[in-house]
Amino acid sequence: MSARITDARVVVSSPGRNYVTLVVETSDGVVGVGDATLNGRELAVASYLRDHVCPLLLGRDPARIEDTWQYLYKGAYWRRGPVTMTAVAAVDVALWDVKGKVAGLPVYQLLGGASRDGVLVYGHADGRDVPELLDRVEAHLEQGYRAVRIQAAVPGVVGTYGVSKHDGRIYEPASGARPEETTWETTSYLDFAPRVFEAVRDRFGFGVHLLHDVHHRLTPIEAARLGKSLEPYRPFWIEDATPAEDQTAFRTIRAHTTTPLAVGEVLNSVWDVQTLLTERLVDYVRTSVSHTGGISHLRKLYALAELYGVRSGAHGAGDLSPVAHAAALHLDLAIPNFGIQEHMGHRDPAGEVFTSSYSFADGYMHPGEAPGLGVGFDERAAARFPYEPRYLPVARRLDGTLHDW
Amino acid sequence: MSARITDARVVVSSPGRNYVTLVVETSDGVVGVGDATLNGRELAVASYLRDHVCPLLLGRDPARIEDTWQYLYKGAYWRRGPVTMTAVAAVDVALWDVKGKVAGLPVYQLLGGASRDGVLVYGHADGRDVPELLDRVEAHLEQGYRAVRIQAAVPGVVGTYGVSKHDGRIYEPASGARPEETTWETTSYLDFAPRVFEAVRDRFGFGVHLLHDVHHRLTPIEAARLGKSLEPYRPFWIEDATPAEDQTAFRTIRAHTTTPLAVGEVLNSVWDVQTLLTERLVDYVRTSVSHTGGISHLRKLYALAELYGVRSGAHGAGDLSPVAHAAALHLDLAIPNFGIQEHMGHRDPAGEVFTSSYSFADGYMHPGEAPGLGVGFDERAAARFPYEPRYLPVARRLDGTLHDW
Amino acid sequence: MSARITDARVVVSSPGRNYVTLVVETSDGVVGVGDATLNGRELAVASYLRDHVCPLLLGRDPARIEDTWQYLYKGAYWRRGPVTMTAVAAVDVALWDVKGKVAGLPVYQLLGGASRDGVLVYGHADGRDVPELLDRVEAHLEQGYRAVRIQAAVPGVVGTYGVSKHDGRIYEPASGARPEETTWETTSYLDFAPRVFEAVRDRFGFGVHLLHDVHHRLTPIEAARLGKSLEPYRPFWIEDATPAEDQTAFRTIRAHTTTPLAVGEVLNSVWDVQTLLTERLVDYVRTSVSHTGGISHLRKLYALAELYGVRSGAHGAGDLSPVAHAAALHLDLAIPNFGIQEHMGHRDPAGEVFTSSYSFADGYMHPGEAPGLGVGFDERAAARFPYEPRYLPVARRLDGTLHDW
Amino acid sequence: MSARITDARVVVSSPGRNYVTLVVETSDGVVGVGDATLNGRELAVASYLRDHVCPLLLGRDPARIEDTWQYLYKGAYWRRGPVTMTAVAAVDVALWDVKGKVAGLPVYQLLGGASRDGVLVYGHADGRDVPELLDRVEAHLEQGYRAVRIQAAVPGVVGTYGVSKHDGRIYEPASGARPEETTWETTSYLDFAPRVFEAVRDRFGFGVHLLHDVHHRLTPIEAARLGKSLEPYRPFWIEDATPAEDQTAFRTIRAHTTTPLAVGEVLNSVWDVQTLLTERLVDYVRTSVSHTGGISHLRKLYALAELYGVRSGAHGAGDLSPVAHAAALHLDLAIPNFGIQEHMGHRDPAGEVFTSSYSFADGYMHPGEAPGLGVGFDERAAARFPYEPRYLPVARRLDGTLHDW
Repeated sequence: MSARITDARVVVSSPGRNYVTLVVETSDGVVGVGDATLNGRELAVASYLRDHVCPLLLGRDPARIEDTWQYLYKGAYWRRGPVTMTAVAAVDVALWDVKGKVAGLPVYQLLGGASRDGVLVYGHADGRDVPELLDRVEAHLEQGYRAVRIQAAVPGVVGTYGVSKHDGRIYEPASGARPEETTWETTSYLDFAPRVFEAVRDRFGFGVHLLHDVHHRLTPIEAARLGKSLEPYRPFWIEDATPAEDQTAFRTIRAHTTTPLAVGEVLNSVWDVQTLLTERLVDYVRTSVSHTGGISHLRKLYALAELYGVRSGAHGAGDLSPVAHAAALHLDLAIPNFGIQEHMGHRDPAGEVFTSSYSFADGYMHPGEAPGLGVGFDERAAARFPYEPRYLPVARRLDGTLHDW
Repeated sequence: MSARITDARVVVSSPGRNYVTLVVETSDGVVGVGDATLNGRELAVASYLRDHVCPLLLGRDPARIEDTWQYLYKGAYWRRGPVTMTAVAAVDVALWDVKGKVAGLPVYQLLGGASRDGVLVYGHADGRDVPELLDRVEAHLEQGYRAVRIQAAVPGVVGTYGVSKHDGRIYEPASGARPEETTWETTSYLDFAPRVFEAVRDRFGFGVHLLHDVHHRLTPIEAARLGKSLEPYRPFWIEDATPAEDQTAFRTIRAHTTTPLAVGEVLNSVWDVQTLLTERLVDYVRTSVSHTGGISHLRKLYALAELYGVRSGAHGAGDLSPVAHAAALHLDLAIPNFGIQEHMGHRDPAGEVFTSSYSFADGYMHPGEAPGLGVGFDERAAARFPYEPRYLPVARRLDGTLHDW
Repeated sequence: MSARITDARVVVSSPGRNYVTLVVETSDGVVGVGDATLNGRELAVASYLRDHVCPLLLGRDPARIEDTWQYLYKGAYWRRGPVTMTAVAAVDVALWDVKGKVAGLPVYQLLGGASRDGVLVYGHADGRDVPELLDRVEAHLEQGYRAVRIQAAVPGVVGTYGVSKHDGRIYEPASGARPEETTWETTSYLDFAPRVFEAVRDRFGFGVHLLHDVHHRLTPIEAARLGKSLEPYRPFWIEDATPAEDQTAFRTIRAHTTTPLAVGEVLNSVWDVQTLLTERLVDYVRTSVSHTGGISHLRKLYALAELYGVRSGAHGAGDLSPVAHAAALHLDLAIPNFGIQEHMGHRDPAGEVFTSSYSFADGYMHPGEAPGLGVGFDERAAARFPYEPRYLPVARRLDGTLHDW
Repeated sequence: MSARITDARVVVSSPGRNYVTLVVETSDGVVGVGDATLNGRELAVASYLRDHVCPLLLGRDPARIEDTWQYLYKGAYWRRGPVTMTAVAAVDVALWDVKGKVAGLPVYQLLGGASRDGVLVYGHADGRDVPELLDRVEAHLEQGYRAVRIQAAVPGVVGTYGVSKHDGRIYEPASGARPEETTWETTSYLDFAPRVFEAVRDRFGFGVHLLHDVHHRLTPIEAARLGKSLEPYRPFWIEDATPAEDQTAFRTIRAHTTTPLAVGEVLNSVWDVQTLLTERLVDYVRTSVSHTGGISHLRKLYALAELYGVRSGAHGAGDLSPVAHAAALHLDLAIPNFGIQEHMGHRDPAGEVFTSSYSFADGYMHPGEAPGLGVGFDERAAARFPYEPRYLPVARRLDGTLHDW
């Protein structure tokens, strides 16, 4: 007789930042975990799972991952969107964790086995000015990174995205009881960005991959201009050049520049990238396992990308828990069209709550060989770090207009 | 000095079925209400509002509706989807209710005034067999309806969508502790549907508008075949012929039949209908004010539809509260490209909790002339009807495959 | 009982230049005004209103703005075009003025409230040579402008568009009993324009937005070449690069340059910009409230632009009266996708006829908080300034060919 | 030395219905006439001409027709639209009349000479019921018509388009001091129209061309259904199936039926038909010489149509004066891709004001051999029939929604 799911519970904790973790237990005593963190909207996903999904899991066969996925996706009737797809993803990832443990195999083996030796990752180097950025890039290179995302504070822009306010901390945009109000000014940014790239290339040459996140701030023609202006510095990619709801906006950017384009962390399903991929409007798709319905769905999305020569470049910011990061690494290792993986790391005391089998060396990561995802979750430790409300910032133009953050 | 929002609270109640209601109060003593009901996922939206949105509303100027919309939509970072857009809609509708009361005008007057005398609505006639359906159609005609949706139990299909199990009750698919498991069999349905139409036309002639909901069950070519087979019976529309995530699927249906097509109740933003509208793949767009970001966003969506000759046909099932129904009627009365409005009514004891200024006569509804939406919400009465967990059904094909419900 | 329109009259006056003003009075004693000025064809619009539209307004409910719009648009049978749409706009704007006064709210509050603190405007700096242009730019910066349109007399081109013949007067191209005959020579212009930009950037740097109006003079490939040649000087936009009847001409320009494109002052309806917007061929849409059917229609056009990431940049030359300028500012303040607003001001003695609640400070304008549009119109004063026939110039190429002015 | 225009005056008269006539005189004593009638908006065009255009004509060389056309079209700055293009047309036609008289040739000779012996015309047969329609068809056949437009009163629709209220009079929809309010009901019409065709074919067989005017009342999918339902009766065309602002709407109709499509009487320039022609969405283009900028512009439009295999089918209702009808016949005779010409005739006492050289025989018309257009205009007689305000009707759906008339 097949096993049954005997418990499914949601744990919200804040070891360094808020994480929502789904824990599934089976009648065979196997425990699987999934990440359900949606930065700034954590409790809505927790409610979606606890109040509406967990009761449905009890008694189901944990081995029927695809059927459960369809059950939750189609059965909700109201489909897609970040809250729904994050909840579904948590269940899906937890069941793959279970299945790996049942098989005694790391998840990547169930996905077809390793297609490479290691997973190229990129780190985040930021600076309150260009000299500080250069120091941070150097520190990353010393740690072995072969690819670095570079962000520097734009003069005159309060609270530039991607730049930590404090020296030496991992950048964390989410803050206290209200969204931080930042400003945005496109003209200064378009003037500044090429000079940042120029300074980094001048210092470190072309032997390191440089990435940059525009974070949805530009119109298509502005993004096209940015892409052209960065061509001499050969970026690995520019990310999220325009708000991604409008997939066809990338046609304009694409027509004007050969700078590689990446997009996807705010997208939640294959429908959100259908035009981007089938028209080959981007080069890297950055959807994450946690926000795109889990391993089962993201794997299909990657298969579509493969068909059109688009590579993966999964979101891997600190707002995804180590559970999500492990799941991403298993997928990264297995698919043929892997590109790069974001790696931001987790702030203490996350390590008191989550353990993992993945490792970093020489610019590459590997998910490890532990059965399942290879992630441990200490619920007792988690209880020591209760949820703290946090909001992502908003951005306003100089005239007060609400802009894309 | 402008007014401020002084309170924003979420009330979950179940007077006949579950409703989530947002109540906003201003420093001028004005109270506005919004509907945040997402059938079967009610508490996730309630959490989204209570835990993440309501704290942000306090102190804001209630008159800045568009700015607040952008603040919640762009500020969430993770955009779109049913949970998010329903939460944003509730705020938007409550603020239009406030603005109408401040102006001393019914909301439709703020939207440009009445474009018609009344709002054509369609009722739901269902039958466990064709004779019962015929009786129900007759009952609707006696009540004055000029348009009726017809659904009958497909022989051999357990739990056909749209057919009440009990005589004389409003159809309510959501039920208890687990989703009902229904079956689906396309061949029987495609054979049966034209015979249902034939029977109704034989009895009542062509002087009444007949609508039919396919409820996402067909592939595009099956839907095309259904459309062709119904042409002799001149349906007003067939609704949700295929799952609507894939807007381009409608190209296939469209190429084969002149039967009018309607879609949209599961869609949440203008991005979800962009291809459907700009390629004129449907004739009626059925997005609802509650699930599509409120009056501010739906109005823009309708303007896009107008440009392409597509009319409205808003979802108006019992799973939207009287607040949502009133908001829909105000929009329906004001826009130039109104088509038809679904009207299912609300089961007792909804009337003990919600009062409304809208009325039905002779097949038409009108939102009434009370300032704002014209809906009263009795929180004390609501407290007598606590939330009861309910799920929408799932459907499986004969081999057990999870199908679209 | 609802109010009725009791009077509707047209006033043609020339306080500084010709303006056509529609005055509507209601049975509640509310007065609304609309601008019906069509530069050089004023009396045709006046006749359209006085002889064909005003008689239809008497007895109508002033609150039914959308229905009246449709009545005049569809009821004319012969739709669209500048004369018709200007006449319809005047009625629409007057009725929004009435509705604001009835509600006791400024019009922008009826449009969803303020989406920003102020409206960024650009002024006109022109020069009979480059040094004079530089002086005028400096004068604008001293007045607080953050954005300036720059036009300088092209050597060898008689009567260059946009350049005042007299020192220190607002540029006014319309003149006496016959259209002025100016010349046009593309080669000189394409050589000259980048040097003008270079001179202004050399003197004032990149901290001010520079705009430029090509005024329909180029072929698509010439416009593409101009756009490329200006890229180093980062214009805010180039306006009306080619005659705008042919929306698809912009595909060619778009394919070759990232210089932002603006168009629209000669266009009259959403149909005139459908391709431009849905194919994202421009970045700013410059249609005006007066020539595009009023607030009701322009709002829908802006919503379409929003969907495609296109911003507004409304025409605001002196050939629109303060009534139109106020209406534009209300829309500018309310819509999410505002870009910039032209502000040319009005020559004396316009201020003896029109008063307004709008204000300029620090590069921004604001419509003010008076109910309705906030514009006063003194009919007795208007009578002191009778209509004077004026024509816009024409342009001929060196061989005498009639060219686009 | 070349001749000069010495006078240009506008005559508004109402011999049976309102006509606006432009009279141009030259220094050689030649008189040319143009039709500037825009049904229901006559005085606006009259003002456009009298107040803004006529002063510009004085002193111009009447032989420079194309230059004058460009001068008025481009010089107006605000281009296109029915008022503008009708005014420009009147000048253009008058100058062709002059040129013909100067050459001593009928205008068609200047257009390349006759491409056929006669111009196939269709007449209007209408009926308050089907038997009356059949009588009228028979009357037309007896008069020699080979093509007849058939319109019958739709049961339950008040004031059906195209049906005279009085026996034996030419249908004239324009009426008194207010637009007539008619009703519209699509369902009844779609049911009725095929039965009308069936009755006419049953009685008269397939040896006569039958045309039908839908008059903009349908959505694209409804028009597609109508087209399919009429296929057995082989209409010559169905006209104005949907509102023609949206050229792309015809893609939907086109995809579903082989019934020939005609459109264009409400369109004013080649830009308005660019998509219709280049995508071959219609089979006949019905733009008129009077409303489409005159002979010079319409000739180019026909040339574009020829390129795509589309034929002409010019509007020729009684709302165009005999001047316009003559101009149409000259063009019809000359172009290679002539299709058919509408011929409605003019009600008495039009014949007291206008004389013409054109003739009807055996189903064909011919413009005659008089120099110029061959039309005489008696200004003194015209003065006996002063302008009477008239409006075209409006149509409302059953719920009061303003519909396309």
